[in-house]
Amino acid sequence: MTVSQSFARNLLDFSRRDLPEEAFDRARNAIIDTIGVTLAGSRHQGSEILRSVVLPTAATGKSRIFGTDLTLNSLDAALLNGTAAHMLDYDDSNSHMHGHVSVAILPAILALADEHGISGPAVLNAYIAGFEAAARMGNAVSRRQYTLGWHPTTTVGIFGAVAAAAVLLELTQEQTATALGIATSFASGIKSNFGSMTKPLIVGHANRNALTATALARAGFSSGPTTFEHHQGFFAVFNGAPESYDASFIVEPWSGPLRILDRHKGIKQKRFPCCYALAPPLDGVLALREEYRLLPEQIASVEIGVHPIRFPHINVQSPDTPLAAKFSTSYTIARALVTGTVTMEDFEDEAHFNDPATRSLMPRVSLHRYENDNPSGASVIIKTTGGQQLERFVEAALGSTYDHPIPEQAIRRKFLDCAALALNSNEAENLLKRLETDEFA
Amino acid sequence: MTVSQSFARNLLDFSRRDLPEEAFDRARNAIIDTIGVTLAGSRHQGSEILRSVVLPTAATGKSRIFGTDLTLNSLDAALLNGTAAHMLDYDDSNSHMHGHVSVAILPAILALADEHGISGPAVLNAYIAGFEAAARMGNAVSRRQYTLGWHPTTTVGIFGAVAAAAVLLELTQEQTATALGIATSFASGIKSNFGSMTKPLIVGHANRNALTATALARAGFSSGPTTFEHHQGFFAVFNGAPESYDASFIVEPWSGPLRILDRHKGIKQKRFPCCYALAPPLDGVLALREEYRLLPEQIASVEIGVHPIRFPHINVQSPDTPLAAKFSTSYTIARALVTGTVTMEDFEDEAHFNDPATRSLMPRVSLHRYENDNPSGASVIIKTTGGQQLERFVEAALGSTYDHPIPEQAIRRKFLDCAALALNSNEAENLLKRLETDEFA
Repeated sequence: MTVSQSFARNLLDFSRRDLPEEAFDRARNAIIDTIGVTLAGSRHQGSEILRSVVLPTAATGKSRIFGTDLTLNSLDAALLNGTAAHMLDYDDSNSHMHGHVSVAILPAILALADEHGISGPAVLNAYIAGFEAAARMGNAVSRRQYTLGWHPTTTVGIFGAVAAAAVLLELTQEQTATALGIATSFASGIKSNFGSMTKPLIVGHANRNALTATALARAGFSSGPTTFEHHQGFFAVFNGAPESYDASFIVEPWSGPLRILDRHKGIKQKRFPCCYALAPPLDGVLALREEYRLLPEQIASVEIGVHPIRFPHINVQSPDTPLAAKFSTSYTIARALVTGTVTMEDFEDEAHFNDPATRSLMPRVSLHRYENDNPSGASVIIKTTGGQQLERFVEAALGSTYDHPIPEQAIRRKFLDCAALALNSNEAENLLKRLETDEFA
Repeated sequence: MTVSQSFARNLLDFSRRDLPEEAFDRARNAIIDTIGVTLAGSRHQGSEILRSVVLPTAATGKSRIFGTDLTLNSLDAALLNGTAAHMLDYDDSNSHMHGHVSVAILPAILALADEHGISGPAVLNAYIAGFEAAARMGNAVSRRQYTLGWHPTTTVGIFGAVAAAAVLLELTQEQTATALGIATSFASGIKSNFGSMTKPLIVGHANRNALTATALARAGFSSGPTTFEHHQGFFAVFNGAPESYDASFIVEPWSGPLRILDRHKGIKQKRFPCCYALAPPLDGVLALREEYRLLPEQIASVEIGVHPIRFPHINVQSPDTPLAAKFSTSYTIARALVTGTVTMEDFEDEAHFNDPATRSLMPRVSLHRYENDNPSGASVIIKTTGGQQLERFVEAALGSTYDHPIPEQAIRRKFLDCAALALNSNEAENLLKRLETDEFA
């Protein structure tokens, strides 16, 4: 059996497993969170530009474009919603796949759900299967793709989206294998576009491509039979060194605990609408701010330490756009010290972005690489003008593990905050109620 | 200046050069050849499947879908025509970019030409500029992308298509740089899908993506400013080793001889509708066949030697589909010895494909790697049942250099042969006449 055949067989077997209610709860919670950030992202200039380019080329259909009154064909819905979903970098992620998991698979699922009128547990099941596939592919290719400069949200995530679509549309094993094979030639996205609109664009692009691959495979198209394991296949080409990938995560039966329920590497959700690497520093700074009732004028310096792998993503010292500010330690930490939190408006409203109190605090914030081997943590040292030195080490951000989840109520509030940018409060409440009762289409 | 800014500046400067008539002639000839193979490719099952998937999602527009009566939006026209253009692997290539050059850029150009009603020299100029950009990017990344398993027709070619589109639509330098930057995250395509329908699909996909990138840049989208030279940018991620690429081909002014008129590495055109690595062996075998008036029953053995880099592409010993036969030395050589040529029908008609005389000759054909360092040549040794040993070394296939072009008349005939699959003879003649007088839209 080839890798794509084993992948397809294991995926379809997995999709027929009896899953615990806890997995459905987790999936539902993630879908609510993701649709919220999609609604907020749909109002961003990047989403507006993309719509202006796509709408003249797109046939209408049944798939909703979140944040608008439009319904389009499923391919373009996946592109537009997928881009909007990641536009604010406010969506969840997963450490098995080394990327953003829900935005990698959900836009494709929802576009198909609308098109085919599928709702309820079938959607949750497709989400969980796509999650498992993306996480296992992430295990197979290891962190190396991320380290080399790939954007695993798309280069790994596309297989999760194909998997979810194959499960939702009940493809045969052969069709599923073909679709996965086509996707190896669609896989794209590099990290040098981080910080620009192209980062979220590629997420929508991957969702669209996943649906194209699925539709082509259903219609009888062909792909290379050994396109993963071939010496010029996905594993070798994207990973380089043979010892850096391990197909067994894909080709061995998918038994054992569900990846979505992994205590440490399940779904990481975001409290703050900025780069996830900033969440542990923000948690630490906000905890010290609250504990010591710190005022901005009392801050002499703030030293943030993060793992070297995180350092380059958040080392923007003087962001000149609100978008770049999402990757700026100095801006977000200063802003949090001034207001007590970081909100979406801090990256959209010029008044917030140019707030004098924040601007004057920024030069006092510094970022360095720390020496320990915890990639998810952050060290915080605040020196006060009174001569105090306050320290905190954050092991992992709130929302990053089962043990320290973001409270359900906070996710609800985040959804309504986000939805408020695109819907009136009645519409937002109604949509939330529908999602909470598994009405996804 | 960043690489994408220099790229944009040099491209736009180049597009304002006075070009010699010879370059226009070469471009016109290539466009005719490419539209011919597009028409033929449009009848292939792969093109039909793709249309069945794309048509329900595609808004109508002004861009022709070759081989049909449809006109669609330019993005989907680029996808469909680009896929059809490469479907038969009968299109031209270029050794600077290590891939197929016209199919990488022309479908995007023609879709825009139709959409905007642009014809005449502007189209030829955009083609020549796109050609130069693709060839120079091929120089910059070297053969290494090909060796690693990338499909340079798409991973290099996409920059040619963006360049051509930027010239045709008169983008500003800043817009052009942004479009090139977006394209670094669209670049995709790996060689493990060679031999399947996904190989041509990715060519159409890259043309479509190039137009999306161009349209987004025109509308104000953003990409990373240093997305080529960044340590996790296009050069580093796709090439790996820093010594394997050289941005100077892009960032130094584009003076000197035109790549399209390069005597050795200009446009390589194909006489035979199969993998280009088979052309030198076929030329050698057909020359011996004619010179010695060989009959199939006189052949005891045929030994073909090619450079190790070509060997794996044509080492299909027992093709089980007509598509796989395009990569089969044994099938194509046997077929040429039986009929005196290789035609499109040999890869489409089951009667040709299963012809007993051809099948019985195939086991007598063998392929090996030769030791010399000419990647474009082939050695042929035919042993006859009468004990003769006939030898021929072909330095390069007919059509592969300026010194040994395919005669203009043969390109005309190839166009009409190809067009006959999709048009009646009047339509084909009329289209040819229009193209010969630069009526491209």
